[in-house]
Amino acid sequence: MIILGVDPGTNVTGFGIIKFSNNRLEHIAHGVIKLSSFNSIPSRLETIYDELSRIIKIYKPDEFAIETAFYGKNIQSTMKIGYARGVSLLASIHNKIVTSEYSPGEVKKAVVGKGSASKEQVGYMVKTLLNMKRVKFKPDESDALAIALCHAFRMKAPTYKKSKGWKEFIEAYPERVIG
Amino acid sequence: MIILGVDPGTNVTGFGIIKFSNNRLEHIAHGVIKLSSFNSIPSRLETIYDELSRIIKIYKPDEFAIETAFYGKNIQSTMKIGYARGVSLLASIHNKIVTSEYSPGEVKKAVVGKGSASKEQVGYMVKTLLNMKRVKFKPDESDALAIALCHAFRMKAPTYKKSKGWKEFIEAYPERVIG
Repeated sequence: MIILGVDPGTNVTGFGIIKFSNNRLEHIAHGVIKLSSFNSIPSRLETIYDELSRIIKIYKPDEFAIETAFYGKNIQSTMKIGYARGVSLLASIHNKIVTSEYSPGEVKKAVVGKGSASKEQVGYMVKTLLNMKRVKFKPDESDALAIALCHAFRMKAPTYKKSKGWKEFIEAYPERVIG
Repeated sequence: MIILGVDPGTNVTGFGIIKFSNNRLEHIAHGVIKLSSFNSIPSRLETIYDELSRIIKIYKPDEFAIETAFYGKNIQSTMKIGYARGVSLLASIHNKIVTSEYSPGEVKKAVVGKGSASKEQVGYMVKTLLNMKRVKFKPDESDALAIALCHAFRMKAPTYKKSKGWKEFIEAYPERVIG
């Protein structure tokens, strides 16, 4: 399964692509879409949409993950993050990719094990998990990869089917019996 | 000139279309895109984009106007307005229509003459200006028409070319000379 994680913004939009199969995590690509050279918001939004569509066509991700509920420093920047997120989601929908949204706390918890982890801790764990300790990621790239990793762990986590009783549960999940 | 005004939201997106030519204002169409029956934000965003694209294909507007800097009651609703605005702008860009953004104060000032006008005053003036006093507009329709009217008045307002001196100015704009 190939997962595209996106950290959208109207100044910089980060992306990270990982492969997750047979319980192994593999780095595929990462980068930023720089938008500061475009004057108007509409042209920035068009560029985010076009670039993400291009990335989707190249790497053919099966899943798309985005951070939700992260808010800007003030209401203007929150609104702009909203613009960028809206068109990012649309690029995913138009390319028929399932979208998932995670809160910053969920991403931190999945990657570091602690919802209140610092940006540095997240960056360190992204490098460790992807076996890329020597690479220097930009913050937006690191965040995008963390979102993709969070989605991989969510896919990995077993979802137990509802069992009618202990007997049925033990038959379905023998590995859960200790000793 | 045909102007499409849009009041975007993830629950309801209002639109209003007017014609402005030879200094005359004419109502063309108005309506709402209802989104509450869609469960997910991505499917709502897709519907806003698709419906606005459909409206653009039918009415072929020359200009697209949207309200900016209006914020929701709280940060979550502000973010959602951002999503809706982002995909609305994209629908306009993808259909090669020039977009303009106006603040709520600019819209009120253009339509009522007062930046602090009430919603009711705006609604009343929209009806009066479009000669549609008997029609009952929904709030999102009225707001979308007000945005379109604001854009028409902006187009109407004379923009004086820079003149090198009074002589040149008087030659270019003889109607500005009093008495």
